[in-house]
Amino acid sequence: MIDSEQYRVTREPYYRPVGDEVRLFEAAYAARMPVMLKGPTGCGKTRFVEYMAFKLGRPLITVACNEDMSASDLVGRFLLDANGTRWQDGPLTTAARIGAICYLDEVVEARQDTTVVIHPLTDHRRTLPLDKKGELVSAHPDFQLVISYNPGYQNLLKDLKPSTKQRFGALDFSYPDGAVETEVVAHESGVDVETAAKLVEIAQRARNLKGHGLDEGISTRLLVYAGQLIAKGVEPRAACRMTLVRPLTDDPDMRDTLDAAVATFF
Amino acid sequence: MIDSEQYRVTREPYYRPVGDEVRLFEAAYAARMPVMLKGPTGCGKTRFVEYMAFKLGRPLITVACNEDMSASDLVGRFLLDANGTRWQDGPLTTAARIGAICYLDEVVEARQDTTVVIHPLTDHRRTLPLDKKGELVSAHPDFQLVISYNPGYQNLLKDLKPSTKQRFGALDFSYPDGAVETEVVAHESGVDVETAAKLVEIAQRARNLKGHGLDEGISTRLLVYAGQLIAKGVEPRAACRMTLVRPLTDDPDMRDTLDAAVATFF
Amino acid sequence: MIDSEQYRVTREPYYRPVGDEVRLFEAAYAARMPVMLKGPTGCGKTRFVEYMAFKLGRPLITVACNEDMSASDLVGRFLLDANGTRWQDGPLTTAARIGAICYLDEVVEARQDTTVVIHPLTDHRRTLPLDKKGELVSAHPDFQLVISYNPGYQNLLKDLKPSTKQRFGALDFSYPDGAVETEVVAHESGVDVETAAKLVEIAQRARNLKGHGLDEGISTRLLVYAGQLIAKGVEPRAACRMTLVRPLTDDPDMRDTLDAAVATFF
Amino acid sequence: MIDSEQYRVTREPYYRPVGDEVRLFEAAYAARMPVMLKGPTGCGKTRFVEYMAFKLGRPLITVACNEDMSASDLVGRFLLDANGTRWQDGPLTTAARIGAICYLDEVVEARQDTTVVIHPLTDHRRTLPLDKKGELVSAHPDFQLVISYNPGYQNLLKDLKPSTKQRFGALDFSYPDGAVETEVVAHESGVDVETAAKLVEIAQRARNLKGHGLDEGISTRLLVYAGQLIAKGVEPRAACRMTLVRPLTDDPDMRDTLDAAVATFF
Amino acid sequence: MIDSEQYRVTREPYYRPVGDEVRLFEAAYAARMPVMLKGPTGCGKTRFVEYMAFKLGRPLITVACNEDMSASDLVGRFLLDANGTRWQDGPLTTAARIGAICYLDEVVEARQDTTVVIHPLTDHRRTLPLDKKGELVSAHPDFQLVISYNPGYQNLLKDLKPSTKQRFGALDFSYPDGAVETEVVAHESGVDVETAAKLVEIAQRARNLKGHGLDEGISTRLLVYAGQLIAKGVEPRAACRMTLVRPLTDDPDMRDTLDAAVATFF
Amino acid sequence: MIDSEQYRVTREPYYRPVGDEVRLFEAAYAARMPVMLKGPTGCGKTRFVEYMAFKLGRPLITVACNEDMSASDLVGRFLLDANGTRWQDGPLTTAARIGAICYLDEVVEARQDTTVVIHPLTDHRRTLPLDKKGELVSAHPDFQLVISYNPGYQNLLKDLKPSTKQRFGALDFSYPDGAVETEVVAHESGVDVETAAKLVEIAQRARNLKGHGLDEGISTRLLVYAGQLIAKGVEPRAACRMTLVRPLTDDPDMRDTLDAAVATFF
Repeated sequence: MIDSEQYRVTREPYYRPVGDEVRLFEAAYAARMPVMLKGPTGCGKTRFVEYMAFKLGRPLITVACNEDMSASDLVGRFLLDANGTRWQDGPLTTAARIGAICYLDEVVEARQDTTVVIHPLTDHRRTLPLDKKGELVSAHPDFQLVISYNPGYQNLLKDLKPSTKQRFGALDFSYPDGAVETEVVAHESGVDVETAAKLVEIAQRARNLKGHGLDEGISTRLLVYAGQLIAKGVEPRAACRMTLVRPLTDDPDMRDTLDAAVATFF
Repeated sequence: MIDSEQYRVTREPYYRPVGDEVRLFEAAYAARMPVMLKGPTGCGKTRFVEYMAFKLGRPLITVACNEDMSASDLVGRFLLDANGTRWQDGPLTTAARIGAICYLDEVVEARQDTTVVIHPLTDHRRTLPLDKKGELVSAHPDFQLVISYNPGYQNLLKDLKPSTKQRFGALDFSYPDGAVETEVVAHESGVDVETAAKLVEIAQRARNLKGHGLDEGISTRLLVYAGQLIAKGVEPRAACRMTLVRPLTDDPDMRDTLDAAVATFF
Repeated sequence: MIDSEQYRVTREPYYRPVGDEVRLFEAAYAARMPVMLKGPTGCGKTRFVEYMAFKLGRPLITVACNEDMSASDLVGRFLLDANGTRWQDGPLTTAARIGAICYLDEVVEARQDTTVVIHPLTDHRRTLPLDKKGELVSAHPDFQLVISYNPGYQNLLKDLKPSTKQRFGALDFSYPDGAVETEVVAHESGVDVETAAKLVEIAQRARNLKGHGLDEGISTRLLVYAGQLIAKGVEPRAACRMTLVRPLTDDPDMRDTLDAAVATFF
Repeated sequence: MIDSEQYRVTREPYYRPVGDEVRLFEAAYAARMPVMLKGPTGCGKTRFVEYMAFKLGRPLITVACNEDMSASDLVGRFLLDANGTRWQDGPLTTAARIGAICYLDEVVEARQDTTVVIHPLTDHRRTLPLDKKGELVSAHPDFQLVISYNPGYQNLLKDLKPSTKQRFGALDFSYPDGAVETEVVAHESGVDVETAAKLVEIAQRARNLKGHGLDEGISTRLLVYAGQLIAKGVEPRAACRMTLVRPLTDDPDMRDTLDAAVATFF
Repeated sequence: MIDSEQYRVTREPYYRPVGDEVRLFEAAYAARMPVMLKGPTGCGKTRFVEYMAFKLGRPLITVACNEDMSASDLVGRFLLDANGTRWQDGPLTTAARIGAICYLDEVVEARQDTTVVIHPLTDHRRTLPLDKKGELVSAHPDFQLVISYNPGYQNLLKDLKPSTKQRFGALDFSYPDGAVETEVVAHESGVDVETAAKLVEIAQRARNLKGHGLDEGISTRLLVYAGQLIAKGVEPRAACRMTLVRPLTDDPDMRDTLDAAVATFF
Repeated sequence: MIDSEQYRVTREPYYRPVGDEVRLFEAAYAARMPVMLKGPTGCGKTRFVEYMAFKLGRPLITVACNEDMSASDLVGRFLLDANGTRWQDGPLTTAARIGAICYLDEVVEARQDTTVVIHPLTDHRRTLPLDKKGELVSAHPDFQLVISYNPGYQNLLKDLKPSTKQRFGALDFSYPDGAVETEVVAHESGVDVETAAKLVEIAQRARNLKGHGLDEGISTRLLVYAGQLIAKGVEPRAACRMTLVRPLTDDPDMRDTLDAAVATFF
């Protein structure tokens, strides 16, 4: 009844390993250990999960968490049907039933009930109680839970509780080093390696400004955007202004600084 | 089943380009890059999107965001029908299915769940998970997401998260220069060019007061209002008072200043 | 199906013009320009809109806005019917369809989603998207939007956004001058002109106390109340105490001051 | 269909006038002027409205307002029926239709939408728009709105807006003078006049403590309670302790003061 | 249709009077006066109401109030049935209809609308308006309302309004004196009188610490728990640690103090 | 109708007693005394309840409490069925009916209405009123309520009320001593005792840092995770980094401290 094929990752995603993260994830998956991916925006966490799901041959169900998401959005709810109410599994329940990898993106954004609901799935019980339905779902042997977490956002009001954190093994992610990132940008945007290398150098300068006027550095994704515009014939400075400077800041001084960094290379 | 024709822009909107924004938007659209339009109230962002939708021959679905808008308002919800519940696509889902340009106006006003819901549509996945329905919508190849953003409003409590910002190329908008704005006002309101030029000059003086007692300068839209009243025979000073001064401020001194600016030209 | 006749103003409302507001409103209506009426409580804004609706021969739909009003209260919602859900237009949608003047009284009290929902109705688009129904309503050519706004209430937390304000021409209202107000009070309450004049003089004294212990001055409406009691044989001082003093303040000193003002004339 | 008889006051309520309030209310009702009753807890406002409803021969619908009451609780809502939704009038709508006096007790406790919803019923329009139903109810010619208001409670966060206050004539209420209150207590509780007089004297002493450790003085209602216990054979000091002291305060010193006042008379 | 027998107290509850509270309650019930029971946690208020309900031969309906309880939870609501909506009386309405004693436990925890809804039941009207159903319930002649109230909890944000307090006669409750409490503990737990007396002495020492590091003293209920464990063969010190110390505090010093008190007697 | 077998603990859970907790719990269960388990995250409270349920031969229903959980989530609610509404017992009601042990995990996270709803189940009444259904459930003679509570989390805003605390006997839990914990880690992860002992020593060092930069010490669960990775061939330092360091902290200094502790042993 559940079309688990729609969650299958059918083409190998382009992923360029930066350390031993693939091997560690495989060992964690072998123990069905829940895993937490830590790192800044746009550094490739989502892509990594897709790659691992492909490599391990498991369906992948991704949920973008947010502060208005309730436990029911994850677990499921009753819907009204011609014959009365009908239970509709939420994405977490579906993943537990079909043995998918369930990836909760930015789980810290969710309300407490969302994070507590995963507890019995992340210890020796590996169960998910559907209290409203009166059913206790035992997770499929292949099921694994993965969450992402951006340490740069945490504050006193919004953080994972220790009783949640201590249910996960954790992997750190960061921007790839220059050579790897250049390879990625060239591959994804279609520009030549020389242009890609310039874009990466601009990004590295901007990343040093994080915490000194910039909330986040330029992500690999934005570099790919810049490359795509250049590949379509847009003049590099205009392309960088549109993709590397304007999205990041409205502060005139910071814009000048970033524009100057662009001008150094193009 | 969806009447995509109702979203078609059938007449060329009047739009007067002010820079290379048309060319940059075309390149971004060619890459299906999500685009963010930045600029103050009433400077023509909405008109620009309509113009581009017309030029690119794509349907346009516009959503005025607000702080009470939920993710369901964008994505869709179940409605009760004679045969039970029936799924109703929201405007974002409709746009993703029919390959429209989806324009989220003042997206920063929306709640977090609204902004997070667009994430998978704005990276390489180009998908929209309808969690409540258990369906994963793949965006139509022609679909593009455009958002607007008024930097003047941002504060510490309400801003786009870096993980959202870094999914967009960005274009800056401002009021057009004097000659262009005069042309626009005359064209839209029916007054002669000389009168339109006077109205623009009043606006330029008022815009210098932004941040010195005025939250925003006089928009092009209000100049067109003034022109319309004058074209209908209203005495220019009364027309300006009603359209350029009274809507902007209740402060007596600021009103005197603006009335004096009007009196200089009429 | 909509009984637009119930919104027709069938008898000419008593309205005594105080300036060029009738002529300006007619010109604004000719351009279908949205209009904002500014002024204190009880000075005749509602009556003016009724008068203009009568004069222009348009139906009038009035909505008293409040902070618990949602966009759905204006736009409409799905109701459950014998055959499933049925769409019910809200007052704004009804007005847009039948070409009525829609008057949103004290719009600043409403939540943000209420004020944002009127945006596409107040620019060149003149449309109202019913997102939940998937319909884009084009306003009837005779439709006009009018809002009221009491500048005395505004504070930092609750004000119209510039992007809303700049969609309206604005007309200022205040209490009528003494002769006009005397005429109004006598006409509405049935007291003789001499008594009405005394009531107006009491009001004028009290209005000077606004901001010095009184939140608002005595409105024309309260003067009519006082006149009505006097016309029914109530002793004038008792009538004034009940209608001009007790409703305004519980402060003993302020009550003495107002009682003394009454005693000067009766 | 509405059983208006159930709202009829069939027996003359015991009410002992204390001033010209009956005559003033009759004149206000003759003009169908909305009336606000001001005064402390338990001084007889509710009883007065019942008495006037009886005297004027009108049905009375009383609503105890509270901060969780919504406009729908007053106006009505759609209910689900065998044949779909069915409109159910709220108490205010019922009162407007059948020509009852509608008494909103402690209206300041209600949310803003409740207070704004009464505006069109309290000016020359005398209408109640049922926006959700698309019906404009014209009030029955005999309908009158009465509200109560305890000035002792007001604070900066919760007060009637001037635009609401200025729709009402106002009558002040207070505790009756000693002789009248003695008569009331004896009549209601069944104790002799001498005992009743002692109870009233205790109350008068306690009322002087209002604002000096007591939030409110002893109400007439509590005196009647004390009398009832005494009439049932409870020892007077124990009766007073249970009804006049313990309900008012938990402060030991204040309890001693009140107990001493009791001991002076019994 | 209502099974009032399920609310009947069929066995005489064990209650040991401590003063004239039984006689005063009987007199109050004879006058159907609403009664407020004041006193700390676990001192026997609930048991007293059960005892009085048994003695007076009335059914008893108890509601544990809480801050999420709405007026509908007390009064009733519409439920959906095979034939549409069906009204379901809440516990307060049931009690008013069948002539039960309705006991609202810790009423100060409830929201304002819950406390206001009892007003018309607690004065001469003795009615309960079911606004949503359009019915005015007259209370059964045997109906009485009883509330409990723990003065130790009150703070500025959460207290009964004077207009609510002044509707009740009040009875103070406290822990019983040593001999009585020893009798209660022995009777309820099955330990001998000597052991019970030791437990009571421990409690009396701990109660002196209230306000000096303990929020509440040890209740009679906890003494019964300790006795039950001892009667089942648990070593007295371990039993006291589990029931008299660990539940009350996590502060190490306070735990030492309490453990020492236990060691003095066992 | 309820499948109580699904709540049966069919295999003896691995539990290593650390004191007299098993005997005390048995005595408490014999008296059907409600029990509160206190202690830090991951020290075995959940496992202990499972073990006791197995030992006592009772079904176990576990509910992970959270701040968005309402009383209805515990008690039950009406669902819509082909024949109208149907009552669905919540987990607490199910447990009370079938005589299960109901374990409310981290009950302090729940809203007040959740904690108050358990009151009548935790005193001599042993009843659960289903107010919405009008039913009073008497608990099965075998029913027992158990709650957990982490004293380290409490703050001024969120704590159990004394009237709740005083309904429970309490057992303290902590991390097991070194030998026991080594045994547990080796048994659960498959590593040899020597490796397990090293992991426990690392944990003991980290636990001393609690309150000095760490919110919680390393739990036994994380030690098992580390052991599992090592057993699957991951290099011990990498395994410890992923399971003992990265999940606990993002602070660079604290990470260095913990990494150094790991390096001491591996």
